[in-house]
Amino acid sequence: MLLNCDLGESFGNWKMGLDDQVMAYIDQANIACGFHAGDPDVMQHTLALAKVYNIEIGAHPAYPDLQGFGRRSMAHSHDEVVNLLHYQIGALSGMAAVQEQQISYVKPHGALYNDMMAKEAVFDAVLDAIARYPQSLKLMLLATSEAQNYKEKAEKAGVSLLFEAFADRRYLDDGRLSPRSLPDAVLDSEQTLEQVSLLASEGVVITSSGAKLSLNADTLCVHGDNPHAVAMVKQIRDLLPR
Amino acid sequence: MLLNCDLGESFGNWKMGLDDQVMAYIDQANIACGFHAGDPDVMQHTLALAKVYNIEIGAHPAYPDLQGFGRRSMAHSHDEVVNLLHYQIGALSGMAAVQEQQISYVKPHGALYNDMMAKEAVFDAVLDAIARYPQSLKLMLLATSEAQNYKEKAEKAGVSLLFEAFADRRYLDDGRLSPRSLPDAVLDSEQTLEQVSLLASEGVVITSSGAKLSLNADTLCVHGDNPHAVAMVKQIRDLLPR
Amino acid sequence: MLLNCDLGESFGNWKMGLDDQVMAYIDQANIACGFHAGDPDVMQHTLALAKVYNIEIGAHPAYPDLQGFGRRSMAHSHDEVVNLLHYQIGALSGMAAVQEQQISYVKPHGALYNDMMAKEAVFDAVLDAIARYPQSLKLMLLATSEAQNYKEKAEKAGVSLLFEAFADRRYLDDGRLSPRSLPDAVLDSEQTLEQVSLLASEGVVITSSGAKLSLNADTLCVHGDNPHAVAMVKQIRDLLPR
Amino acid sequence: MLLNCDLGESFGNWKMGLDDQVMAYIDQANIACGFHAGDPDVMQHTLALAKVYNIEIGAHPAYPDLQGFGRRSMAHSHDEVVNLLHYQIGALSGMAAVQEQQISYVKPHGALYNDMMAKEAVFDAVLDAIARYPQSLKLMLLATSEAQNYKEKAEKAGVSLLFEAFADRRYLDDGRLSPRSLPDAVLDSEQTLEQVSLLASEGVVITSSGAKLSLNADTLCVHGDNPHAVAMVKQIRDLLPR
Repeated sequence: MLLNCDLGESFGNWKMGLDDQVMAYIDQANIACGFHAGDPDVMQHTLALAKVYNIEIGAHPAYPDLQGFGRRSMAHSHDEVVNLLHYQIGALSGMAAVQEQQISYVKPHGALYNDMMAKEAVFDAVLDAIARYPQSLKLMLLATSEAQNYKEKAEKAGVSLLFEAFADRRYLDDGRLSPRSLPDAVLDSEQTLEQVSLLASEGVVITSSGAKLSLNADTLCVHGDNPHAVAMVKQIRDLLPR
Repeated sequence: MLLNCDLGESFGNWKMGLDDQVMAYIDQANIACGFHAGDPDVMQHTLALAKVYNIEIGAHPAYPDLQGFGRRSMAHSHDEVVNLLHYQIGALSGMAAVQEQQISYVKPHGALYNDMMAKEAVFDAVLDAIARYPQSLKLMLLATSEAQNYKEKAEKAGVSLLFEAFADRRYLDDGRLSPRSLPDAVLDSEQTLEQVSLLASEGVVITSSGAKLSLNADTLCVHGDNPHAVAMVKQIRDLLPR
Repeated sequence: MLLNCDLGESFGNWKMGLDDQVMAYIDQANIACGFHAGDPDVMQHTLALAKVYNIEIGAHPAYPDLQGFGRRSMAHSHDEVVNLLHYQIGALSGMAAVQEQQISYVKPHGALYNDMMAKEAVFDAVLDAIARYPQSLKLMLLATSEAQNYKEKAEKAGVSLLFEAFADRRYLDDGRLSPRSLPDAVLDSEQTLEQVSLLASEGVVITSSGAKLSLNADTLCVHGDNPHAVAMVKQIRDLLPR
Repeated sequence: MLLNCDLGESFGNWKMGLDDQVMAYIDQANIACGFHAGDPDVMQHTLALAKVYNIEIGAHPAYPDLQGFGRRSMAHSHDEVVNLLHYQIGALSGMAAVQEQQISYVKPHGALYNDMMAKEAVFDAVLDAIARYPQSLKLMLLATSEAQNYKEKAEKAGVSLLFEAFADRRYLDDGRLSPRSLPDAVLDSEQTLEQVSLLASEGVVITSSGAKLSLNADTLCVHGDNPHAVAMVKQIRDLLPR
């Protein structure tokens, strides 16, 4: 199981994330592409950093909503989703090529990610965009109990999937994340490490009802927003040696 | 001598340019990349249209200024120019690749174009950006009497240049365009066709002082904003058969 | 019954609407405030034009989505709706004050308008924003058969309502507009003038099922996008002399 | 001598400035208006905070350049400057009115501030904008040895000026700030407090050449970016009791 992290989420004069610290412990950098965060200067810097640590890079495209950080669902047609993905993937891919780097996957961000998991039409548009992109790219999405549905569609489209689990989020029985509005939605440090251990050893999580849920995650989403988060990533890394 | 035209300058609900009409008569489409005009949907559509007419495509990147249509000079550092070019070139290039197209040149837009011609530091940054882009791309710039200076720098950087002349603009003796504030800065239809003929046959223009100025233009910039402009392009095309 | 029209929907270099032609025939100008269209220069110009024709002016605020022209629904919290309304109303109001003008009403635009009519939470946020704005402003909304519900809420909040009908749109029995996806959603010229006559004389429309629906509209929405639309407005004006 | 500070410079998810800490020590809050920083939600929050501390509020308008934080000079015509100021002043003013607050001055931000001090045409446009705004607003600008020129123009326009000095910046003999590229441009804590003391007691600063320069500042610009900066403001406040 790999570790992925959202990075390059500064914008202009605004700094976000301890990218230079967390890079040391992760395997995959999901890099913002300018629509919810990241600007060409931030993207260049983030790519250079990923090169230093020699980690895999992926595009982290979003709805066009800087003010909302891409977290507000926006009605988009199939073609609008396809085109905004191609634009953002192309922009990051071109900037990566300048530094002799190549992106290998796409992880939609925020509301686009949630819409992709909740609405079939959005998932289909995302899949279509990646299938039509000439370079072979994987799609990173949430590991749920419905993985088989996604796999079948993706296989048909010729796209490989990367299922991700969340280290520090409580799961519901159906494999969805417990909404942040609930008191126990976010795990504490100890619970997080337990969840990671269990995922690594048995491929399961204990849901909010106490049930065992099999997730078969390829990669684990971690955060690098603050010193505490980075310290957690370091501990998680120790549980999942490369 | 080829014909190039700025295209794809609609944005969202706002339409600009008779792209579908002018495409039939030109050789090179300078396609807006989202910073001064063009959005992912407009770009996709413009690329598809260029494919129908099988014409050469180039990136038409700009300063980030939608409201000013990229026509307001903005202070930018060397790295900021390089990064915004790589971002926009990458975005268009990625979208083109989806349709099995390839861009072959870059023509900076508006204030970025003017700054490139007026300020050595900006030209150097543009050249640096294109030299470092992994795909070989030409740089389109204004044909002036100082072409040799630009050629030497470009050769050193390993970049090919495309010098462009303007069909409908009066030239000063030093090869710069007569500023639009002057009464005779823009040629009428008859004068435009005369200027094109002379450029095609002798490689010269008659400047505002009546002198002959040698320009050696590779390509001629024409416009497709309105039915009259398109009619002019048709007549210019007749003077310059493919 | 007054005539209202969306105006000031140009942006930067992109022109939209024959504002200077349609102004002569309408009573109320709904002026874009920069979030879906309009920029400070366009707004200044539109206000000046409204002053020449001495017509009532209102704010036409939207979700922050230039590319989508404010027509894409975006998830917004109560406070986000309130704040974006106050910002846009304030901006237009300040610019109007410079020209000794005063806005008198608010008509939300596009998806914000549709969301306001479809989702109680959005209507409540809009109403709250207008109620809390220190200057007394009316709220323009769709005249439907549920007018009473809206009136009760508005009265409680101390806000006056302006119900608008659409001159050229087919109505469903419940007072909603026939969706544009249906073939007969938009009326032709003759039907439009008939609908206006009936609204003016009896306060009713004939719905898509042939039923009579009472609307009690205070104002009629007309369009000034193109010469044909302007000609229609002129004819509608003749039916509704001032 | 009052203390003023740039505030409300967060944007969306990006936080900047310890506004809630520094507010306790200052007299005047320069509030960003959405063009370089600040969004409607941030502005609402900043205004509410200023109300708690009962401090004077001013508009801090900028060129439209989020990515460059308003620090990149942009070519703007007289009317463009006037209109962007009226828009931003109106937006903040409207939001303030909702909370029963009133702005009393305008301090242009970043490159607009620098351009105003360096180019007469920009100063004239700023002055024109403020003179024409119906509410009486003061203009905050840099205290230099050329104050008399500014005063004469402002008096003619009927605008009051607020001259500001910088607590922590080294001055040149002509009253301009030593450019940040020079090693001693920014004062250390001890030097800052000395400069403030001298400004408060004698109205002078010691320039980089060791000369005494009279500044007659009405207000002192301080910063609240980080805990150290806030600690400095607290110490400066102790030197300048209210």
